[in-house]
Amino acid sequence: MPLANRRGEGGEAPTWIWYPGDFEIWLGNIFNNRRTERGAMFPPFWKQDSHYVTVEFTTNVELEEDEIIIIKAEGQYNFAIDGQLKPPYTNCIPKGGHKLSFKVWNQATPPALFISGKTIHTNSTWFVTYEDKIWIDENGVAHGSGIYVSAGSWNFNSPDTPPSQYRLERRELRPVSKEQIATAHTLYDFGREVFGYLKLSNQEGHIDVYYGESREEALDSEHCETLDHLCPGHREPGSKAFRYVSVRCDNGSYDDILMDYEFAPFNPAHSGAFRCSDDELNRIWDVAAYTMDLTTREFFMDGIKRDRWTWSGDAIQSYLMNYYLRFDKECVKRTIRQLRGKDPVTAHINTIMDYTFYWFKSILDYYEYTGDVAFVREMWPRMVTLMDYVLSRTSSTGMAEGQPDDWIFVDWVDFPMHKRGTLCFEQILLMKTLETMTLCANLVNDTIPNADASCYRVKADELRNKINQTFWSDEKKAYFHAIEMAEQHANHQAGEQVVNKQITKFPNMFAILYGLADEEQRREIMQSVMLNPDIPAITTPYMRFYELETLCIDGRQEQVTDEMKAYWGGMLREGATSFWEKYIPSETGTQHLAMYGRPYGKSLCHAWGASPIYILGKYYLGVRPTKPGYEEYEVRPNLGGLEWIKGSVPTPHGMISVSMDRHHVTVRATEGTGWLIVGDQRVRIEPDNELTISL
Amino acid sequence: MPLANRRGEGGEAPTWIWYPGDFEIWLGNIFNNRRTERGAMFPPFWKQDSHYVTVEFTTNVELEEDEIIIIKAEGQYNFAIDGQLKPPYTNCIPKGGHKLSFKVWNQATPPALFISGKTIHTNSTWFVTYEDKIWIDENGVAHGSGIYVSAGSWNFNSPDTPPSQYRLERRELRPVSKEQIATAHTLYDFGREVFGYLKLSNQEGHIDVYYGESREEALDSEHCETLDHLCPGHREPGSKAFRYVSVRCDNGSYDDILMDYEFAPFNPAHSGAFRCSDDELNRIWDVAAYTMDLTTREFFMDGIKRDRWTWSGDAIQSYLMNYYLRFDKECVKRTIRQLRGKDPVTAHINTIMDYTFYWFKSILDYYEYTGDVAFVREMWPRMVTLMDYVLSRTSSTGMAEGQPDDWIFVDWVDFPMHKRGTLCFEQILLMKTLETMTLCANLVNDTIPNADASCYRVKADELRNKINQTFWSDEKKAYFHAIEMAEQHANHQAGEQVVNKQITKFPNMFAILYGLADEEQRREIMQSVMLNPDIPAITTPYMRFYELETLCIDGRQEQVTDEMKAYWGGMLREGATSFWEKYIPSETGTQHLAMYGRPYGKSLCHAWGASPIYILGKYYLGVRPTKPGYEEYEVRPNLGGLEWIKGSVPTPHGMISVSMDRHHVTVRATEGTGWLIVGDQRVRIEPDNELTISL
Repeated sequence: MPLANRRGEGGEAPTWIWYPGDFEIWLGNIFNNRRTERGAMFPPFWKQDSHYVTVEFTTNVELEEDEIIIIKAEGQYNFAIDGQLKPPYTNCIPKGGHKLSFKVWNQATPPALFISGKTIHTNSTWFVTYEDKIWIDENGVAHGSGIYVSAGSWNFNSPDTPPSQYRLERRELRPVSKEQIATAHTLYDFGREVFGYLKLSNQEGHIDVYYGESREEALDSEHCETLDHLCPGHREPGSKAFRYVSVRCDNGSYDDILMDYEFAPFNPAHSGAFRCSDDELNRIWDVAAYTMDLTTREFFMDGIKRDRWTWSGDAIQSYLMNYYLRFDKECVKRTIRQLRGKDPVTAHINTIMDYTFYWFKSILDYYEYTGDVAFVREMWPRMVTLMDYVLSRTSSTGMAEGQPDDWIFVDWVDFPMHKRGTLCFEQILLMKTLETMTLCANLVNDTIPNADASCYRVKADELRNKINQTFWSDEKKAYFHAIEMAEQHANHQAGEQVVNKQITKFPNMFAILYGLADEEQRREIMQSVMLNPDIPAITTPYMRFYELETLCIDGRQEQVTDEMKAYWGGMLREGATSFWEKYIPSETGTQHLAMYGRPYGKSLCHAWGASPIYILGKYYLGVRPTKPGYEEYEVRPNLGGLEWIKGSVPTPHGMISVSMDRHHVTVRATEGTGWLIVGDQRVRIEPDNELTISL
Repeated sequence: MPLANRRGEGGEAPTWIWYPGDFEIWLGNIFNNRRTERGAMFPPFWKQDSHYVTVEFTTNVELEEDEIIIIKAEGQYNFAIDGQLKPPYTNCIPKGGHKLSFKVWNQATPPALFISGKTIHTNSTWFVTYEDKIWIDENGVAHGSGIYVSAGSWNFNSPDTPPSQYRLERRELRPVSKEQIATAHTLYDFGREVFGYLKLSNQEGHIDVYYGESREEALDSEHCETLDHLCPGHREPGSKAFRYVSVRCDNGSYDDILMDYEFAPFNPAHSGAFRCSDDELNRIWDVAAYTMDLTTREFFMDGIKRDRWTWSGDAIQSYLMNYYLRFDKECVKRTIRQLRGKDPVTAHINTIMDYTFYWFKSILDYYEYTGDVAFVREMWPRMVTLMDYVLSRTSSTGMAEGQPDDWIFVDWVDFPMHKRGTLCFEQILLMKTLETMTLCANLVNDTIPNADASCYRVKADELRNKINQTFWSDEKKAYFHAIEMAEQHANHQAGEQVVNKQITKFPNMFAILYGLADEEQRREIMQSVMLNPDIPAITTPYMRFYELETLCIDGRQEQVTDEMKAYWGGMLREGATSFWEKYIPSETGTQHLAMYGRPYGKSLCHAWGASPIYILGKYYLGVRPTKPGYEEYEVRPNLGGLEWIKGSVPTPHGMISVSMDRHHVTVRATEGTGWLIVGDQRVRIEPDNELTISL
């Protein structure tokens, strides 16, 4: 048992502890099961895991004198000193060296423990297991040992704030206007998209509440996505996303209306910022930041009105935006843990093959932005078993193909696109996954000796070659979209695999983003695909995230400025107060509200709509880490055709501020060693030394 | 999705349904966590699993008219008709053909559902999944499908008896005598071992209760195994096993004392019975039956005072005894499900390698006695993954060796015996396990096409040969106990595997019982090992179960009669009112109470002590199924040196009665086709036809 009390690392203050990941998995079930569809609960269609119901917490102590401890547990517990069970209510540890063990059982919420004494405190230096495997022979001698891991914890630092009582913060908001639609029928407007709990005071009788992200939705009681029928015994609406609320009380009454706006707190002094010479772009940044704040909750949520689940493909974009906005690393870790759940793996994450691959990539991104190797270590065993699942489903040639129970997402598209067979896009994501496993194995194999990078490296290299051989067209200067089974066809046998000649932006931009394309291929792809008007356009902000990043990598910030103003600016001109799930500029009026065959099915506040946060932080302010956790970083500012830009980017423990106009660049950073790179200039940035260079 | 409403199979009456096994896993946690050690809770040291927190129940219906249903759920639920979510409180299904789906979420207790209508009833014809995997594309079209299995159910047939409210039955018992030990200190004797809840009326102040299976234990407040300190706020003792109760109330008072005896109900008309010309043997049978009744609870329990957990090696004997006593097949299934728990497998069952192997064997036994192939089908996926675990830990030669975190139990022994290295005993159990997998694969592969017997058959045959080659000694006419790593030794390299020359009864008797030894080997083993006084004696009733069975197979019932009277009769002469965990005839007085280095550590009511039930039913009355579920059976009665025997054995839906003296045998059976076999006579038994033959 790897027991060593690393006192100091975990700090001296006591905090609630649990089995790592279990708080998130339990909270995730509450979170995901809050989704409703016109009043009916709507849980996810994938396996919801649960916490380990009985766990043992343990530590070693060395006491100079007897010590009295306060013991709080969520669940029934026992307490053993040096392996000997103590009578209930024992709270005195005799002086000397001792091993303390607490076994806690709780079916409903994660077993959790809080110990506070003069020197003894629960914190992340404690160890925890779900099976101690210690058995007693007929002579009373103990044998065996289970696998212990470092205890999970966060900021539950008081005995009276156990993890099961966690909730976000709230503040009251009032509607900004109201409109009498008919007798006993009022429409309230909260001025912009909000999230929280409607509160009607002095309710009597029956009151019907219809919520809308749009005025049209709130007034369409037959088709709006969320509603509440308030009646005696059911007076407390659940949390909802809305701007408008339509309240009908033909058989009831109420006095006043307001709402508890619910939000994840953040530190404004440790937040990203952006301003530039273009007011529309400033408004885009502000609305994107508000979209991010609305979707940053217990976990990163996709859309706050309808979906309300954690989605890995959406989340990886939220993480990346978050590194340029609030740097809420706890929310990143929570979401990654929650998405992964537990073994056995019975489906891809969210049942979507691409989303499994993004999950791996998100751990690498997290490490690069935070430098937190402890989290990689925590996740490693679950990375291995998820990777085993992936590899157990690859084809004989090592390629990932959708099985009948897999969802292949790629993107919502409006043109015919193959999603079955062997997609180039999925192979590139799998290649990145294998490379991520290789890198992470090397990161953790100091403490996890069986973490073997070589098996993943070999597969990654093989796949890289295979993708280029299979999909790259020297004639088209592009990666083809798919190979698939030939139908009965003149030149092919039925069942034979043939390359489909379709070309889409998806594999081609990921070939650039994930390092498959070499420099020459990159230049060719930009011309033949990314800037080619004959290739079908991307219509979701989801994939526009990657499309704009590709353009930035190619140095086309000026074009990106135009596209942001056209696309995100377009949403603003349509009245958006947060950014949408999908936007088709050619649509008009209520067409913008419809999706999934439903008149208000589209989410008007979708995390993936906030990508300008990321683009402006990383490719205009130009800040990114070059060693994990900003130990080293670079700043490559780019005006993108604007007069001036200025802003700041949070780092693990500080900030990097950048301002630029056509004559000067100024940078100031509070931690790490950076390089300011503009044109041919490359100047070293020292902490707390403001650096200005002329252009 | 294999949906077909097999109406009729599941009956017309509604009953609560859940995900199969989840009720047992949840109940098992409550059961196993009730163990206490001097007031402290004492959970198991292996992983405790939990139910799936969100499951979907579904069925197809064909309605001639609209139908109103009553919906009861344990947990939050939603309801969809033909995949369309319905508003809360929907309870009318329109006429026609429909697919009904209910998704239920419950963290604390298993999600369960009860539907009752004119024609629609929840029962085992419904299907259930923990992930429906049905996703909706951007056009609102549903895709995908999860894996559905038949819903679990039992006898919760009323909307007001949900599974989470299950409890055993109770009746009041009073002490048979009391003894004033001192002022405010009384010792009560309940006359024999009992199990349940002590009840003190009109409690005031503080009352200390010390329980004892013996008078000595109850009076030894410092060392008794179980106790209660009753005080304001804690007035309800948990369930305890005891005969004596010592109550001290120096600072408190009470008026009256009694107990709620708690028991699993059984049907006396469907129970085994045994009487013979020897009164002591009759008392042994009665006390063994009472021992079984005390240990047959929510699950088959090992010892009711101290251990109070489910243990696979103990349970397989309880199952076999139960087939000759109460034929409580539900308790067998519950225990098998609970012991297995869920994937991933992280340890052997109870952490003990032999106990994993017994778990497999117990499914084969269950099938042979009940003919219930549906249960084999239910368990098959978990048999496969547990087998995968076993095979992942075998040596390069295919043999099972204990890993550092495995407990190798075999038996509690009082002589030096190797439990590490490669034990012949464990290989024989593994061989039987592989044969069980072969048989069960063939049983289920009509509905589970990928159940492949051949891979297990090949391994079983290879292992059979290897055991004989490795462990059988033609010189000793016995199987050696172990091969192990050679220490630095004259004739061996360090690290070389060498056969240890120790001979024990364990592998030799299992070679006979599990069909490894051929007829010649069997005769040789009987002489060289089983009847050889130089081979160390077995001292636990646990392994005496198998020892006596071996003697019976060899036709030595007369010797077994003597041994039962000596060993079990010996316990009775020591005052046993239920049979013990271990008995060493040479010990005296309170030596009989001690074990595990504790003065009252020994369990005086241990299921494995009840083996005469099995021996007398199977080898004296001589009844056993020869086709699954007593479709065919044989009766080979044996007087075992007694004047006369008579009794009955329960079968799935009836009884077989046998009586025998030195002149006649009479048999009557209510189902199946049997053969009465005595000496050279072999006579066919027809249902409900009493058959008498002369000897």
